[in-house]
Amino acid sequence: MKRLKVSNNVIRRLPRYLRKLDELTEQGVTRVSSQELGQQLGLTPSQIRQDFSCFGEFGQQGYGYHVPALRAQVAAILGMDRNYRAVLIGVGNIGHALIDNFCFSDWGVRLTAAFDVKPEVIGTTFNKVPVLSMEELPRYLDENEIDIAVLTVPKDAALPVTRILTGHGVEAIWNFTNVELTEPNSSVLVENIHFSDSLLSLSYYISERADEKAAKAARRERKG
Amino acid sequence: MKRLKVSNNVIRRLPRYLRKLDELTEQGVTRVSSQELGQQLGLTPSQIRQDFSCFGEFGQQGYGYHVPALRAQVAAILGMDRNYRAVLIGVGNIGHALIDNFCFSDWGVRLTAAFDVKPEVIGTTFNKVPVLSMEELPRYLDENEIDIAVLTVPKDAALPVTRILTGHGVEAIWNFTNVELTEPNSSVLVENIHFSDSLLSLSYYISERADEKAAKAARRERKG
Repeated sequence: MKRLKVSNNVIRRLPRYLRKLDELTEQGVTRVSSQELGQQLGLTPSQIRQDFSCFGEFGQQGYGYHVPALRAQVAAILGMDRNYRAVLIGVGNIGHALIDNFCFSDWGVRLTAAFDVKPEVIGTTFNKVPVLSMEELPRYLDENEIDIAVLTVPKDAALPVTRILTGHGVEAIWNFTNVELTEPNSSVLVENIHFSDSLLSLSYYISERADEKAAKAARRERKG
Repeated sequence: MKRLKVSNNVIRRLPRYLRKLDELTEQGVTRVSSQELGQQLGLTPSQIRQDFSCFGEFGQQGYGYHVPALRAQVAAILGMDRNYRAVLIGVGNIGHALIDNFCFSDWGVRLTAAFDVKPEVIGTTFNKVPVLSMEELPRYLDENEIDIAVLTVPKDAALPVTRILTGHGVEAIWNFTNVELTEPNSSVLVENIHFSDSLLSLSYYISERADEKAAKAARRERKG
Protein backbone atom coordinates (compact mmCIF):
# COMPACT_ATOMS: atom_id res chain seq x y z
CA MET A 1 0.00 0.00 0.00
CA LYS A 2 1.31 3.42 -0.87
CA ARG A 3 1.28 5.72 2.10
CA LEU A 4 1.35 9.45 2.35
CA LYS A 5 2.37 10.96 5.63
CA VAL A 6 -0.92 11.27 7.47
CA SER A 7 -1.48 13.58 10.42
CA ASN A 8 -1.91 12.09 13.86
CA ASN A 9 -5.36 13.63 14.18
CA VAL A 10 -6.55 11.71 11.13
CA ILE A 11 -5.01 8.48 12.43
CA ARG A 12 -6.77 8.95 15.77
CA ARG A 13 -10.10 9.36 14.02
CA LEU A 14 -9.77 6.13 11.98
CA PRO A 15 -10.65 3.77 14.87
CA ARG A 16 -13.70 5.93 15.56
CA TYR A 17 -14.79 5.55 11.94
CA LEU A 18 -14.27 1.82 12.24
CA ARG A 19 -16.44 1.61 15.35
CA LYS A 20 -19.18 3.66 13.72
CA LEU A 21 -19.07 1.54 10.56
CA ASP A 22 -19.37 -1.62 12.68
CA GLU A 23 -22.37 -0.09 14.41
CA LEU A 24 -23.99 0.73 11.04
CA THR A 25 -23.28 -2.81 9.81
CA GLU A 26 -24.99 -4.21 12.90
CA GLN A 27 -27.99 -2.01 12.11
CA GLY A 28 -28.09 -3.37 8.57
CA VAL A 29 -27.05 -0.05 6.99
CA THR A 30 -25.02 -0.59 3.80
CA ARG A 31 -24.67 2.93 2.49
CA VAL A 32 -23.92 6.17 4.31
CA SER A 33 -23.27 9.73 3.18
CA SER A 34 -20.52 11.92 4.58
CA GLN A 35 -23.35 14.14 5.91
CA GLU A 36 -24.88 11.30 7.96
CA LEU A 37 -21.50 10.00 9.09
CA GLY A 38 -20.49 13.51 10.12
CA GLN A 39 -23.66 14.15 12.06
CA GLN A 40 -23.30 10.88 13.98
CA LEU A 41 -19.66 11.55 14.82
CA GLY A 42 -19.82 15.27 15.43
CA LEU A 43 -17.59 16.04 12.43
CA THR A 44 -18.24 18.08 9.31
CA PRO A 45 -18.90 16.20 6.04
CA SER A 46 -15.94 17.93 4.43
CA GLN A 47 -13.64 16.81 7.25
CA ILE A 48 -14.75 13.22 6.68
CA ARG A 49 -14.21 13.45 2.91
CA GLN A 50 -10.81 14.99 3.51
CA ASP A 51 -9.80 12.27 6.01
CA PHE A 52 -10.66 9.47 3.61
CA SER A 53 -9.04 11.22 0.69
CA CYS A 54 -5.68 10.82 2.49
CA PHE A 55 -5.91 7.13 1.64
CA GLY A 56 -7.44 7.26 -1.84
CA GLU A 57 -10.97 7.60 -3.12
CA PHE A 58 -13.67 5.64 -1.32
CA GLY A 59 -16.94 7.41 -1.94
CA GLN A 60 -18.92 8.28 -5.00
CA GLN A 61 -20.41 11.74 -5.39
CA GLY A 62 -24.12 11.57 -4.66
CA TYR A 63 -24.09 7.92 -3.65
CA GLY A 64 -22.23 8.10 -0.38
CA TYR A 65 -20.00 5.36 0.94
CA HIS A 66 -20.57 1.63 0.69
CA VAL A 67 -20.32 0.61 4.35
CA PRO A 68 -18.72 -2.86 3.98
CA ALA A 69 -16.15 -1.63 1.44
CA LEU A 70 -15.27 1.42 3.52
CA ARG A 71 -15.01 -0.74 6.64
CA ALA A 72 -12.62 -3.12 4.87
CA GLN A 73 -10.49 -0.23 3.65
CA VAL A 74 -10.26 1.42 7.06
CA ALA A 75 -9.40 -1.95 8.64
CA ALA A 76 -6.62 -2.48 6.08
CA ILE A 77 -5.24 1.02 6.66
CA LEU A 78 -5.13 0.28 10.37
CA GLY A 79 -3.17 -2.92 9.71
CA MET A 80 -5.89 -5.20 11.05
CA ASP A 81 -5.24 -7.70 8.25
CA ARG A 82 -1.55 -8.15 9.07
CA ASN A 83 -1.85 -10.80 11.78
CA TYR A 84 0.18 -9.02 14.41
CA ARG A 85 1.18 -11.13 17.37
CA ALA A 86 1.26 -9.88 20.94
CA VAL A 87 2.38 -10.96 24.39
CA LEU A 88 1.11 -9.52 27.65
CA ILE A 89 3.43 -8.86 30.58
CA GLY A 90 1.93 -8.67 34.06
CA VAL A 91 -1.20 -10.64 34.93
CA GLY A 92 -2.59 -8.39 37.66
CA ASN A 93 -6.11 -7.01 37.65
CA ILE A 94 -5.69 -4.97 34.48
CA GLY A 95 -3.74 -7.67 32.65
CA HIS A 96 -6.30 -10.23 33.68
CA ALA A 97 -9.16 -7.97 32.57
CA LEU A 98 -7.56 -7.51 29.16
CA ILE A 99 -6.97 -11.23 28.64
CA ASP A 100 -10.51 -12.12 29.70
CA ASN A 101 -12.53 -9.27 28.23
CA PHE A 102 -10.63 -7.50 25.50
CA CYS A 103 -11.10 -9.34 22.25
CA PHE A 104 -7.68 -8.86 20.65
CA SER A 105 -8.65 -10.99 17.64
CA ASP A 106 -11.50 -8.60 16.80
CA TRP A 107 -8.77 -6.07 16.04
CA GLY A 108 -6.56 -8.43 14.07
CA VAL A 109 -4.10 -9.13 16.89
CA ARG A 110 -3.30 -12.56 18.30
CA LEU A 111 -2.35 -12.70 21.96
CA THR A 112 -0.05 -15.72 22.12
CA ALA A 113 1.19 -15.74 25.72
CA ALA A 114 1.24 -13.86 29.01
CA PHE A 115 4.10 -13.56 31.48
CA ASP A 116 4.22 -13.00 35.22
CA VAL A 117 6.47 -13.49 38.25
CA LYS A 118 3.81 -14.86 40.63
CA PRO A 119 4.18 -18.65 41.07
CA GLU A 120 0.41 -19.04 41.58
CA VAL A 121 -0.44 -17.83 38.07
CA ILE A 122 2.52 -19.30 36.16
CA GLY A 123 1.41 -22.41 34.31
CA THR A 124 -2.26 -21.45 34.34
CA THR A 125 -4.32 -20.45 31.33
CA PHE A 126 -6.73 -17.54 31.02
CA ASN A 127 -9.11 -17.48 28.09
CA LYS A 128 -6.81 -19.96 26.26
CA VAL A 129 -3.74 -17.77 26.82
CA PRO A 130 -0.96 -19.57 28.75
CA VAL A 131 0.79 -17.68 31.54
CA LEU A 132 4.55 -18.30 31.47
CA SER A 133 7.30 -17.32 33.88
CA MET A 134 9.05 -13.99 33.32
CA GLU A 135 12.29 -15.96 33.17
CA GLU A 136 11.10 -17.51 29.93
CA LEU A 137 10.39 -14.14 28.32
CA PRO A 138 13.76 -13.51 26.59
CA ARG A 139 13.87 -16.94 24.99
CA TYR A 140 10.21 -16.70 23.98
CA LEU A 141 10.85 -13.37 22.26
CA ASP A 142 13.90 -14.75 20.48
CA GLU A 143 12.01 -17.80 19.19
CA ASN A 144 8.71 -16.12 18.25
CA GLU A 145 8.10 -13.09 16.12
CA ILE A 146 6.26 -10.78 18.47
CA ASP A 147 5.05 -7.42 17.16
CA ILE A 148 3.44 -5.95 20.25
CA ALA A 149 4.06 -6.20 23.99
CA VAL A 150 1.15 -5.27 26.24
CA LEU A 151 2.71 -3.83 29.37
CA THR A 152 0.52 -4.24 32.47
CA VAL A 153 3.21 -4.60 35.13
CA PRO A 154 3.48 -2.59 38.36
CA LYS A 155 5.13 0.82 38.05
CA ASP A 156 8.54 -0.27 39.35
CA ALA A 157 8.82 -3.07 36.81
CA ALA A 158 7.98 -0.91 33.80
CA LEU A 159 11.49 0.19 32.83
CA PRO A 160 13.38 -3.08 33.56
CA VAL A 161 10.78 -5.08 31.60
CA THR A 162 10.89 -2.56 28.73
CA ARG A 163 14.64 -3.09 28.51
CA ILE A 164 14.13 -6.86 28.17
CA LEU A 165 11.47 -6.34 25.52
CA THR A 166 13.43 -3.93 23.36
CA GLY A 167 16.62 -5.95 23.90
CA HIS A 168 14.87 -8.92 22.32
CA GLY A 169 13.43 -7.25 19.28
CA VAL A 170 10.04 -5.92 20.37
CA GLU A 171 9.39 -2.68 18.50
CA ALA A 172 5.96 -1.71 19.78
CA ILE A 173 4.67 -1.43 23.35
CA TRP A 174 1.09 -0.91 24.44
CA ASN A 175 1.77 0.72 27.77
CA PHE A 176 -0.77 0.55 30.60
CA THR A 177 1.68 1.61 33.30
CA ASN A 178 1.74 5.21 34.43
CA VAL A 179 5.41 5.41 33.47
CA GLU A 180 6.67 7.44 30.51
CA LEU A 181 8.60 4.86 28.48
CA THR A 182 9.57 7.01 25.54
CA GLU A 183 13.22 7.88 25.54
CA PRO A 184 14.57 10.58 23.26
CA ASN A 185 15.61 9.07 19.92
CA SER A 186 14.22 5.65 20.80
CA SER A 187 12.89 3.73 17.82
CA VAL A 188 10.33 1.84 19.88
CA LEU A 189 6.71 2.71 19.19
CA VAL A 190 4.88 3.33 22.45
CA GLU A 191 1.13 3.77 22.70
CA ASN A 192 0.01 4.76 26.17
CA ILE A 193 -3.17 4.11 28.05
CA HIS A 194 -2.67 6.61 30.83
CA PHE A 195 -5.78 6.32 32.95
CA SER A 196 -4.82 9.32 35.05
CA ASP A 197 -4.27 11.55 32.02
CA SER A 198 -7.75 10.74 30.83
CA LEU A 199 -9.35 11.35 34.23
CA LEU A 200 -7.46 14.61 34.63
CA SER A 201 -8.60 15.83 31.24
CA LEU A 202 -12.17 15.17 32.33
CA SER A 203 -11.48 16.97 35.60
CA TYR A 204 -10.18 19.92 33.57
CA TYR A 205 -13.32 20.11 31.42
CA ILE A 206 -15.60 19.89 34.47
CA SER A 207 -13.65 22.72 36.10
CA GLU A 208 -13.73 24.82 32.95
CA ARG A 209 -17.49 24.45 32.74
CA ALA A 210 -17.97 25.24 36.45
CA ASP A 211 -15.85 28.38 36.08
CA GLU A 212 -17.83 29.50 33.06
CA LYS A 213 -21.09 29.02 34.93
CA ALA A 214 -19.74 30.94 37.92
CA ALA A 215 -18.54 33.77 35.69
CA LYS A 216 -21.93 33.99 33.99
CA ALA A 217 -23.74 34.07 37.32
CA ALA A 218 -21.41 36.82 38.54
CA ARG A 219 -22.08 38.88 35.41
CA ARG A 220 -25.84 38.47 35.86
CA GLU A 221 -25.57 39.58 39.46
CA ARG A 222 -23.63 42.72 38.52
CA LYS A 223 -26.22 43.59 35.87
CA GLY A 224 -29.30 42.88 38.05
CA MET B 1 -9.53 31.47 38.22
CA LYS B 2 -9.77 33.38 34.98
CA ARG B 3 -9.72 31.07 32.02
CA LEU B 4 -8.89 31.69 28.41
CA LYS B 5 -10.14 29.18 25.90
CA VAL B 6 -7.31 26.68 25.73
CA SER B 7 -6.80 24.25 22.86
CA ASN B 8 -7.42 20.55 23.42
CA ASN B 9 -3.83 19.74 22.55
CA VAL B 10 -2.58 21.91 25.40
CA ILE B 11 -5.08 20.36 27.80
CA ARG B 12 -3.95 16.87 26.80
CA ARG B 13 -0.35 17.78 27.53
CA LEU B 14 -1.06 19.08 31.05
CA PRO B 15 -1.36 15.63 32.68
CA ARG B 16 1.96 14.68 31.05
CA TYR B 17 3.59 17.75 32.57
CA LEU B 18 2.12 16.79 35.92
CA ARG B 19 3.54 13.26 35.70
CA LYS B 20 6.95 14.57 34.71
CA LEU B 21 6.93 17.12 37.54
CA ASP B 22 6.02 14.36 40.01
CA GLU B 23 8.92 12.33 38.68
CA LEU B 24 11.30 15.27 39.11
CA THR B 25 10.00 15.84 42.65
CA GLU B 26 10.70 12.18 43.49
CA GLN B 27 14.23 12.68 42.18
CA GLY B 28 14.67 15.71 44.41
CA VAL B 29 14.82 18.17 41.51
CA THR B 30 13.38 21.57 42.48
CA ARG B 31 14.17 23.67 39.43
CA VAL B 32 13.87 22.83 35.75
CA SER B 33 14.35 24.81 32.57
CA SER B 34 12.01 24.63 29.60
CA GLN B 35 14.98 23.15 27.70
CA GLU B 36 15.34 20.23 30.11
CA LEU B 37 11.60 19.71 30.40
CA GLY B 38 11.29 19.75 26.62
CA GLN B 39 14.09 17.28 26.11
CA GLN B 40 12.58 14.85 28.61
CA LEU B 41 9.13 15.10 27.05
CA GLY B 42 10.06 15.31 23.40
CA LEU B 43 8.73 18.85 23.07
CA THR B 44 10.44 22.08 22.09
CA PRO B 45 11.24 24.58 24.86
CA SER B 46 9.17 27.22 23.08
CA GLN B 47 6.17 24.90 22.97
CA ILE B 48 6.45 24.39 26.71
CA ARG B 49 6.73 28.12 27.40
CA GLN B 50 3.76 28.74 25.14
CA ASP B 51 1.66 26.05 26.85
CA PHE B 52 2.27 27.49 30.30
CA SER B 53 1.71 31.04 29.11
CA CYS B 54 -1.93 30.08 28.39
CA PHE B 55 -2.45 30.02 32.13
CA GLY B 56 -0.32 32.95 33.22
CA GLU B 57 3.37 33.36 33.94
CA PHE B 58 5.12 30.56 35.78
CA GLY B 59 8.78 30.72 34.89
CA GLN B 60 11.47 33.29 35.28
CA GLN B 61 13.82 34.05 32.41
CA GLY B 62 17.16 32.37 33.07
CA TYR B 63 16.05 30.64 36.26
CA GLY B 64 13.66 28.06 34.85
CA TYR B 65 10.62 26.79 36.66
CA HIS B 66 10.28 26.09 40.36
CA VAL B 67 9.10 22.46 40.29
CA PRO B 68 6.80 22.45 43.37
CA ALA B 69 5.15 25.75 42.39
CA LEU B 70 4.66 24.70 38.80
CA ARG B 71 3.28 21.34 39.95
CA ALA B 72 0.77 23.07 42.24
CA GLN B 73 -0.32 25.38 39.42
CA VAL B 74 -0.79 22.57 36.92
CA ALA B 75 -2.73 20.56 39.52
CA ALA B 76 -5.01 23.55 40.18
CA ILE B 77 -5.59 24.11 36.46
CA LEU B 78 -6.59 20.46 36.13
CA GLY B 79 -9.11 20.87 38.95
CA MET B 80 -7.34 18.44 41.27
CA ASP B 81 -8.03 20.70 44.25
CA ARG B 82 -11.80 20.75 43.75
CA ASN B 83 -12.71 17.54 45.58
CA TYR B 84 -14.71 15.96 42.82
CA ARG B 85 -16.76 12.94 43.82
CA ALA B 86 -17.21 9.87 41.64
CA VAL B 87 -19.21 6.67 41.51
CA LEU B 88 -18.27 3.58 39.52
CA ILE B 89 -20.88 1.53 37.67
CA GLY B 90 -20.07 -2.10 36.85
CA VAL B 91 -17.75 -4.11 39.06
CA GLY B 92 -16.41 -6.55 36.46
CA ASN B 93 -12.70 -7.09 35.81
CA ILE B 94 -12.00 -3.55 34.69
CA GLY B 95 -14.19 -1.93 37.35
CA HIS B 96 -12.57 -4.11 39.97
CA ALA B 97 -9.08 -3.28 38.68
CA LEU B 98 -9.83 0.44 38.87
CA ILE B 99 -11.21 0.26 42.41
CA ASP B 100 -8.27 -1.81 43.62
CA ASN B 101 -5.36 -0.31 41.73
CA PHE B 102 -6.21 3.12 40.45
CA CYS B 103 -5.59 5.68 43.14
CA PHE B 104 -8.42 8.14 42.48
CA SER B 105 -7.44 10.26 45.48
CA ASP B 106 -3.98 10.88 43.99
CA TRP B 107 -5.80 12.82 41.28
CA GLY B 108 -8.10 14.70 43.62
CA VAL B 109 -11.15 12.52 43.05
CA ARG B 110 -13.04 10.65 45.77
CA LEU B 111 -14.68 7.39 44.72
CA THR B 112 -17.64 7.16 47.10
CA ALA B 113 -19.51 4.06 45.89
CA ALA B 114 -19.72 1.38 43.23
CA PHE B 115 -22.84 -0.17 41.74
CA ASP B 116 -23.54 -3.55 40.18
CA VAL B 117 -26.38 -5.95 39.40
CA LYS B 118 -24.65 -9.16 40.57
CA PRO B 119 -26.01 -10.33 43.95
CA GLU B 120 -22.63 -11.83 44.91
CA VAL B 121 -20.84 -8.44 44.88
CA ILE B 122 -23.67 -6.24 46.21
CA GLY B 123 -23.02 -5.46 49.87
CA THR B 124 -19.30 -6.18 49.65
CA THR B 125 -16.52 -3.64 49.89
CA PHE B 126 -13.45 -3.30 47.68
CA ASN B 127 -10.62 -1.10 48.85
CA LYS B 128 -13.07 0.63 51.27
CA VAL B 129 -15.55 1.35 48.46
CA PRO B 130 -19.00 -0.16 49.11
CA VAL B 131 -20.74 -1.95 46.24
CA LEU B 132 -24.44 -1.10 46.13
CA SER B 133 -27.27 -2.46 44.03
CA MET B 134 -27.99 -0.77 40.70
CA GLU B 135 -31.54 -0.26 41.99
CA GLU B 136 -30.18 2.17 44.55
CA LEU B 137 -28.36 4.25 41.95
CA PRO B 138 -31.08 6.85 41.16
CA ARG B 139 -31.71 7.63 44.83
CA TYR B 140 -27.98 7.73 45.56
CA LEU B 141 -27.44 10.24 42.76
CA ASP B 142 -30.34 12.38 43.99
CA GLU B 143 -29.04 12.45 47.55
CA ASN B 144 -25.32 12.88 46.86
CA GLU B 145 -23.57 15.40 44.71
CA ILE B 146 -21.70 13.24 42.22
CA ASP B 147 -19.49 14.92 39.64
CA ILE B 148 -18.18 11.93 37.70
CA ALA B 149 -19.56 8.50 36.82
CA VAL B 150 -16.99 5.85 35.89
CA LEU B 151 -18.73 3.60 33.38
CA THR B 152 -17.35 0.04 33.36
CA VAL B 153 -20.50 -1.88 32.48
CA PRO B 154 -20.88 -4.43 29.64
CA LYS B 155 -21.54 -2.97 26.19
CA ASP B 156 -25.30 -3.57 26.21
CA ALA B 157 -25.78 -1.73 29.50
CA ALA B 158 -23.87 1.38 28.42
CA LEU B 159 -26.74 3.42 26.99
CA PRO B 160 -29.47 2.49 29.52
CA VAL B 161 -27.11 3.24 32.42
CA THR B 162 -26.05 6.51 30.81
CA ARG B 163 -29.71 7.55 30.66
CA ILE B 164 -30.09 6.90 34.39
CA LEU B 165 -26.91 8.87 35.13
CA THR B 166 -27.78 11.92 33.07
CA GLY B 167 -31.41 11.76 34.22
CA HIS B 168 -30.18 12.16 37.79
CA GLY B 169 -27.81 15.04 37.30
CA VAL B 170 -24.47 13.45 36.39
CA GLU B 171 -22.70 15.77 33.97
CA ALA B 172 -19.44 13.93 33.35
CA ILE B 173 -18.84 10.30 32.38
CA TRP B 174 -15.51 8.49 32.27
CA ASN B 175 -16.40 5.88 29.69
CA PHE B 176 -14.58 2.53 29.57
CA THR B 177 -17.17 0.83 27.37
CA ASN B 178 -16.54 0.59 23.67
CA VAL B 179 -19.81 2.44 23.03
CA GLU B 180 -19.93 5.99 21.68
CA LEU B 181 -22.01 7.82 24.29
CA THR B 182 -21.84 11.32 22.91
CA GLU B 183 -25.08 12.41 21.35
CA PRO B 184 -25.22 15.50 19.16
CA ASN B 185 -25.94 18.58 21.29
CA SER B 186 -25.66 16.65 24.55
CA SER B 187 -24.31 18.70 27.42
CA VAL B 188 -22.74 15.70 29.14
CA LEU B 189 -18.95 15.64 29.21
CA VAL B 190 -17.68 12.25 28.09
CA GLU B 191 -14.07 11.17 28.33
CA ASN B 192 -13.43 7.85 26.65
CA ILE B 193 -10.92 5.14 27.35
CA HIS B 194 -11.33 3.19 24.13
CA PHE B 195 -8.82 0.35 24.43
CA SER B 196 -9.39 -0.72 20.85
CA ASP B 197 -8.79 2.77 19.44
CA SER B 198 -5.47 2.85 21.22
CA LEU B 199 -4.42 -0.62 20.02
CA LEU B 200 -5.49 0.19 16.46
CA SER B 201 -3.45 3.39 16.45
CA LEU B 202 -0.44 1.34 17.48
CA SER B 203 -1.26 -1.19 14.76
CA TYR B 204 -1.37 1.69 12.27
CA TYR B 205 2.04 3.00 13.30
CA ILE B 206 3.59 -0.49 13.12
CA SER B 207 2.14 -0.93 9.63
CA GLU B 208 3.33 2.49 8.52
CA ARG B 209 6.84 1.68 9.66
CA ALA B 210 6.80 -1.77 8.00
CA ASP B 211 5.65 -0.22 4.73
CA GLU B 212 8.37 2.41 4.88
CA LYS B 213 10.99 -0.27 5.47
CA ALA B 214 9.64 -2.35 2.60
CA ALA B 215 9.62 0.67 0.28
CA LYS B 216 13.22 1.49 1.21
CA ALA B 217 14.33 -2.08 0.60
CA ALA B 218 12.60 -2.09 -2.80
CA ARG B 219 14.33 1.15 -3.76
CA ARG B 220 17.69 -0.28 -2.75
CA GLU B 221 17.04 -3.41 -4.82
CA ARG B 222 16.17 -1.36 -7.91
CA LYS B 223 19.35 0.70 -7.50
CA GLY B 224 21.61 -2.27 -6.85
